[in-house]
Amino acid sequence: MADKIYRVNMNDLSYKIEDVPEEWMGLGGRGLTSTIVSAEVDPECHPLGPNNKMVFAPGLLSGTPAANSGRNSLGAKSPLTGGIKESNVGGTSAQIFAKLGVKALIIEGIPKDDSTFYHLHVTREKVEIVQVPELVGKNNFEVLDAMLAKYSKKVAVMTIGRPGEMKMPVANVSVKDPEGKFRSHGRGGLGGVMGSKKIKCITVDAESYKETTIANPEKFKAANRIFAKSLLDNPVSGQALPAFGTNVLINILNESGGLPSRNFRSGNSENAEDISGETMADIIKSRNGKTTHGCQAGCVIQCSQVYNDKEGNYLTSGFEYETIWALGAHAGIKDLDMIAKLDSVMDDLGIDAIEVGITLGVAVDAGILKYGDGEKAYKIVSEDIANGTAIGRIIGGGAGTLGKLYGLVRVPVVKNQGIPAYEPRAVKGQGITYATTPMGADHTAGYAVATNILQVGGYIDPLKKDGQIELSRNLQIASAFIDSTGMCIFVAFAILDDPGSLPAMIDMINARFGTSLTGDDVTEMGKKILKMEREFNRKAGLTSAHDRMPEFMKYEPLPPHNVVWDFTNEEIDSVWNF
Amino acid sequence: MADKIYRVNMNDLSYKIEDVPEEWMGLGGRGLTSTIVSAEVDPECHPLGPNNKMVFAPGLLSGTPAANSGRNSLGAKSPLTGGIKESNVGGTSAQIFAKLGVKALIIEGIPKDDSTFYHLHVTREKVEIVQVPELVGKNNFEVLDAMLAKYSKKVAVMTIGRPGEMKMPVANVSVKDPEGKFRSHGRGGLGGVMGSKKIKCITVDAESYKETTIANPEKFKAANRIFAKSLLDNPVSGQALPAFGTNVLINILNESGGLPSRNFRSGNSENAEDISGETMADIIKSRNGKTTHGCQAGCVIQCSQVYNDKEGNYLTSGFEYETIWALGAHAGIKDLDMIAKLDSVMDDLGIDAIEVGITLGVAVDAGILKYGDGEKAYKIVSEDIANGTAIGRIIGGGAGTLGKLYGLVRVPVVKNQGIPAYEPRAVKGQGITYATTPMGADHTAGYAVATNILQVGGYIDPLKKDGQIELSRNLQIASAFIDSTGMCIFVAFAILDDPGSLPAMIDMINARFGTSLTGDDVTEMGKKILKMEREFNRKAGLTSAHDRMPEFMKYEPLPPHNVVWDFTNEEIDSVWNF
Repeated sequence: MADKIYRVNMNDLSYKIEDVPEEWMGLGGRGLTSTIVSAEVDPECHPLGPNNKMVFAPGLLSGTPAANSGRNSLGAKSPLTGGIKESNVGGTSAQIFAKLGVKALIIEGIPKDDSTFYHLHVTREKVEIVQVPELVGKNNFEVLDAMLAKYSKKVAVMTIGRPGEMKMPVANVSVKDPEGKFRSHGRGGLGGVMGSKKIKCITVDAESYKETTIANPEKFKAANRIFAKSLLDNPVSGQALPAFGTNVLINILNESGGLPSRNFRSGNSENAEDISGETMADIIKSRNGKTTHGCQAGCVIQCSQVYNDKEGNYLTSGFEYETIWALGAHAGIKDLDMIAKLDSVMDDLGIDAIEVGITLGVAVDAGILKYGDGEKAYKIVSEDIANGTAIGRIIGGGAGTLGKLYGLVRVPVVKNQGIPAYEPRAVKGQGITYATTPMGADHTAGYAVATNILQVGGYIDPLKKDGQIELSRNLQIASAFIDSTGMCIFVAFAILDDPGSLPAMIDMINARFGTSLTGDDVTEMGKKILKMEREFNRKAGLTSAHDRMPEFMKYEPLPPHNVVWDFTNEEIDSVWNF
Repeated sequence: MADKIYRVNMNDLSYKIEDVPEEWMGLGGRGLTSTIVSAEVDPECHPLGPNNKMVFAPGLLSGTPAANSGRNSLGAKSPLTGGIKESNVGGTSAQIFAKLGVKALIIEGIPKDDSTFYHLHVTREKVEIVQVPELVGKNNFEVLDAMLAKYSKKVAVMTIGRPGEMKMPVANVSVKDPEGKFRSHGRGGLGGVMGSKKIKCITVDAESYKETTIANPEKFKAANRIFAKSLLDNPVSGQALPAFGTNVLINILNESGGLPSRNFRSGNSENAEDISGETMADIIKSRNGKTTHGCQAGCVIQCSQVYNDKEGNYLTSGFEYETIWALGAHAGIKDLDMIAKLDSVMDDLGIDAIEVGITLGVAVDAGILKYGDGEKAYKIVSEDIANGTAIGRIIGGGAGTLGKLYGLVRVPVVKNQGIPAYEPRAVKGQGITYATTPMGADHTAGYAVATNILQVGGYIDPLKKDGQIELSRNLQIASAFIDSTGMCIFVAFAILDDPGSLPAMIDMINARFGTSLTGDDVTEMGKKILKMEREFNRKAGLTSAHDRMPEFMKYEPLPPHNVVWDFTNEEIDSVWNF
């Protein structure tokens, strides 16, 4: 059976299962969500109004045995940035969507009766839409328990917590992972869009799915072998990430002088050792946790982990560098257990740990909490955000809005989305990505850290402007393609270092669909996606004036290298010369 | 002595007195502030950062005996809209600036030592810049008392209250009026810009001023006589406004179905009679207040009033329709005494009564207070905003930001500035002005209410689209010119109805400067100002996508006429075809 488009209309609680239009056939993941959002959503609409749509789409390789192909894309107009948003996630949803034959799930409209919330259950034949008053006001783990009690353990679950119901701009859409924990469509406030549509959770049937058809299984298998080996042979994806998780980056960035600390006042943090990946690995081992762990079936990198508390009980997983940086170096909380507690409660509430972490660091400048005060931060998150108090709404609005309310000038956002974990002044290629990606400051949109800091794919001095525009442009184009495959962004290390890696990935796509894409074709795909997203943003009112770093970075030198953000507007805008 | 530019640099607490550049010679008020802001302020700068500037400039006719010419313009990049802002005010500052020979006062930079606030005293020869730690944390009336104790009673005083110190987006710059009360540079958060520059108050010496030179006194006198008569003969400016103040509009708008009520859910308010101008006039008379009163010397309209409390003690003045609408019809407070108390405390705090009133009405939808709960509103304003509590910061951020924090869709703002007092769906010409003026939703920027509702300058049906684009365009062009003269916007009624009125105004300008401007010249001046402002906004990132009504007005019919906002984007954008 061919893949289908599943379309739910919340205005009248109806659904349709449609054939895939010709022009969407070769698309998946980000390429498909951005195409559908561009085609069907008025760029001037209110992101929380009836004319915004949510589009879920698994990647082109999701549902196959391809290594690391289990990421699902979610697209919509973002309430945080006001522009187009694609946020992708590990967990189990991509593979189940793909195996069920759901090319995309499009959700439109808002129920006339908005007094309660709904649960959507997607099976091959239909979409059930039922009221779930009993789940209103519940957070993620309780919703998950209810769904696991109702369906098989394999069911895919996407849910929002109370902040999503309250339509907070930091609310994410949380997705069940293979262990029954959560991964997140984290950035851009898409949980608020789901809340606006009065959808509490979406489940996808994992019982009735078929296996994904592969046109040329032998060719696929051979290519996958090459590809997986390429991931494992790479020193970053094969060694550093499995050993220490993404948090291996704390020491690396700190040594480079590019670890933003005390709200972007220094590139070094006095807390680096306390919160580093090495320290974390020691703690995990001493408490019988797991240093390696996958967020999705088929992952060969295993950068996740299981972090236990002092008593050896599960505390959190998917404990990422960007979260630890935000709370640890930016907001100054040096107790890794407290950061893990915060990470855990944010998983339960369904809020973007990056945006909330950045906001808490900026809130120090607003006098809302003291630098390093983990207890206060925990109270703000677990009580104020959870209950939607005034201060909870302020922190739940993200860093940009907090800055406006408190008259702050030093607010690290681009397109109103918080800048994570890599100092634009000291990792200049990454700064160009932050400035220019249509997504708002997003570290995965063109991860120049690879070449600026990790020396993957060569080396470009992070402190100098030379070569950064081209680097960011190429990475953004490649990322737009990778985000369309279902692959996680960490396959980029192999692609940058090993000339056989990208051809193997393209071979898998061709073997899956019986196509004959070339390297040039996928580059064109990446370019087309970026230009389409930028065009949506232009119509939504985001111009090159929004492709800018916060002004303070232009006149405030960053220690230890005393560097400023010194690109001219013309240089920045030249990223788009392709 | 020729007029001069007074330039203060807060970076190093220095000042310069400069000759007026040739290209600024024929400009005043809005034309001059917008020219200087466009020439000297980076449109991409942070409005509260060191690269924004404040520009004060009296109108071309300010300081002369011309009727109603005492308005002063203040320009800057707005922290509320992110675009250029000109906000003009009555009171005494324009006339004293003009008579002192201050063509413009430009304030740049931010002090390195930001631990305290400063007082600027402008005399003909110099600008004194002194620390005033004793005034930090004080509100307007206390600052005014301190200045009146130090200088003569005629001194011009411009001050910010605590919300301005806290750089709230609703903070205004308050200006002493002839009676020692306050008028406001109300909209756009310019008090926050003054706060960011650490300026608590500015005084302008009224002892050493010269009388303004008039090139042809006889011609001036004759023209002024015609002009003043034209104002007095007009039924709106000569009768309705003096009798009931601007609040005469409550009943008029309510009858037209264009009085936005319950956060723009209806064009009629059940509170109309309680809060109307007629009721207000009765109350004022019964308590020995004054129904007619001028905000500036030389005013022949006298639309202000003195509103006393039940004991006959002064409560407030300058009690405007837009404030009474916002609190009375939009937020539902039907007790005029409570509204007057709120108006009075907002004068003392130095906050924009329009933006705060609109925000309080939207806050009803957020569940922050109940519709009509004046006591709660008073507590929020007098305690929360005054002290900068979390809820105070939220209300002090304006309606647009509150809407974002609480996930609201029905948020009446354009360019993040609250829409006041006239329903865009039911007063469509005014809606076009709200959508397209570079100022954000500003009722004075092209007051189509005149022709849509008051039938001044003819009649264009407010419920139909026909003719509204041209009406708003012409009024915006005329207003940009009028705002450059120091004239108050109410001279527009005479100009629209009496063909002799505008020529008389132009004659006065020519008599003052020895120029020979024609009607075409002043139209060109208006056009040039608008285009310059729009160009600043474009560079700041505001595009035609920001020239839009809130989306809900497109799909939500407004009772009683059940009208929607039905202009196409192309129609709206055609306002700029000139």
